[in-house]
Amino acid sequence: MIGFDDRLIFENKSNDLLAAGELLVDMISNEYDDTFQSAGYTKFPGGSPSNIAINVRKLGISSIMVSAVGEDGFGKFLVDRLRGEGLETQGIQRNSNSTSLVVVSKSKSTPVPIFYRGADYHLAYTPMLDAALKSSSIVHFSCWPVSRTPSRQTIERMIAEARKQGMLIGFDPNYHSAIWQEGEDGVQYVKDLISKVDIIKPSEDDAERLFGRDTPYRQLEKFLELGAKQVILTLGENGAIVSNGRETRIFETLATDVVDTTGAGDAFWSGFYTAAVKGYTLQEALNLGFAVSAFKLKYTGAVVDLPKIEDIQAYYNL
Amino acid sequence: MIGFDDRLIFENKSNDLLAAGELLVDMISNEYDDTFQSAGYTKFPGGSPSNIAINVRKLGISSIMVSAVGEDGFGKFLVDRLRGEGLETQGIQRNSNSTSLVVVSKSKSTPVPIFYRGADYHLAYTPMLDAALKSSSIVHFSCWPVSRTPSRQTIERMIAEARKQGMLIGFDPNYHSAIWQEGEDGVQYVKDLISKVDIIKPSEDDAERLFGRDTPYRQLEKFLELGAKQVILTLGENGAIVSNGRETRIFETLATDVVDTTGAGDAFWSGFYTAAVKGYTLQEALNLGFAVSAFKLKYTGAVVDLPKIEDIQAYYNL
Repeated sequence: MIGFDDRLIFENKSNDLLAAGELLVDMISNEYDDTFQSAGYTKFPGGSPSNIAINVRKLGISSIMVSAVGEDGFGKFLVDRLRGEGLETQGIQRNSNSTSLVVVSKSKSTPVPIFYRGADYHLAYTPMLDAALKSSSIVHFSCWPVSRTPSRQTIERMIAEARKQGMLIGFDPNYHSAIWQEGEDGVQYVKDLISKVDIIKPSEDDAERLFGRDTPYRQLEKFLELGAKQVILTLGENGAIVSNGRETRIFETLATDVVDTTGAGDAFWSGFYTAAVKGYTLQEALNLGFAVSAFKLKYTGAVVDLPKIEDIQAYYNL
Repeated sequence: MIGFDDRLIFENKSNDLLAAGELLVDMISNEYDDTFQSAGYTKFPGGSPSNIAINVRKLGISSIMVSAVGEDGFGKFLVDRLRGEGLETQGIQRNSNSTSLVVVSKSKSTPVPIFYRGADYHLAYTPMLDAALKSSSIVHFSCWPVSRTPSRQTIERMIAEARKQGMLIGFDPNYHSAIWQEGEDGVQYVKDLISKVDIIKPSEDDAERLFGRDTPYRQLEKFLELGAKQVILTLGENGAIVSNGRETRIFETLATDVVDTTGAGDAFWSGFYTAAVKGYTLQEALNLGFAVSAFKLKYTGAVVDLPKIEDIQAYYNL
């Protein structure tokens, strides 16, 4: 258990964060379009772990991305983009499936994405991936790669190896039935996974998809009952509640100016991991995670031009 | 064997043409973009059989489309569009897979599509499909539904049933390795299928993908050796050569004004089937097919505003 005033201790590794999983194209309608009649779409690079891998470099630590894309134009586009952001791309596998794609029609109510999963879930446990993992302090992944085989086996093996190496394991339990392998109980799988990682950051929506509707405190309790070691339950404009099972603390939002919520969760993870690596206490790292998220909310786009974590700290008087 | 001066004889059926197979969304880059850097895309309804089903109605015969789309926004968009074109849509199955999608970056050289196959290849042989088939004179399909299971089994059962019913079977051997089930010999499958249908219309590119490069006459010969009954080998601006195995005739192109080649092949099939149903001879139906194709080439889009076949006949003095 990590106390709020504890600092996370990392062995001296050559890389700080390894982000694993979905690297994909988001194709988003230009207009609000609840009926899918709109003709115009714009393509964006997507995939939450890649946002985090890019963000933490800007904030001041090192990162590696391991993913799988297709041997096609979209795969090339995504690899070129990571390279443009200064990431090494040896961890990006290419396979014969089409690069995964999500089509989203912007909606005034709830946007319903259409998922085209191809290359992403064919992420293989290669010698390159093994070496990248063992050279890193933290491993992060979301529900995407565990939602289907064979990438699920790759992540399970990564978790086992990360445990052996004493790494910190962060998991985003962003369960969504549509990405899950058909006919499987994704909810149960995610519940079983929670005790095997160190930190989870569910949103209220994630909690509702896993447990049904309930109050935030009762949802938090359910995660802890499943064996979660550290739960960060985000509540949108109402901030977050965080518990290590022994102590629960409330975090008010630091956001003042909300322009675009895309990527706000990834920004939190980015600030949190960066601060943790840089030797801040858990409480400070959480504050800095919420600060980076608040900073991101002022700008449009999943990945924005973040300053160094020390500048964020000064900006928010933390 | 159908002689060039023979008329095709159809039993009195309630529907003329049944088009089976791919109904999908084409997402096409707004700019020429060989490097997949372009951000803007426009979505279009796609799927060659649906183009044909729509065209023949405009030309003057009846049609039914049988396809599978997803229970998603794109599926609704495609069904609404067919309905808007006056087609009945009871033959369109909905399943839990994403509506199939093709992304194309326009290219000055050869555009390389990225295929996202989902719902389309889950076309099932339902009682509704069986009834639609038995009520029709002609069945048409392309390589798409036979490239994967389970739709392959559906088409194979449709062919067997169409044979029993004495229907005319048209097949577009538009083989493309990227749509084929991985690890399978699609070329051999297509070659084996050729003797089981009545009419095939390969392009020179199709022939090259199946047999390698050769002269048009030698390619034609190879199709006949595989048991093809009627081969229409299209040669772009050089017209076509057509053979029933006993006699081979040359058709000069009727196109004078080529604005957009998209859908030109579908326009041929549409004119040919319409004329065949209306009692024209094989030679006349071929002429009218090439005339409809030439008419389409004058306009932009896969499906254009076609007049009645009699007007096309008058327009081209046939």
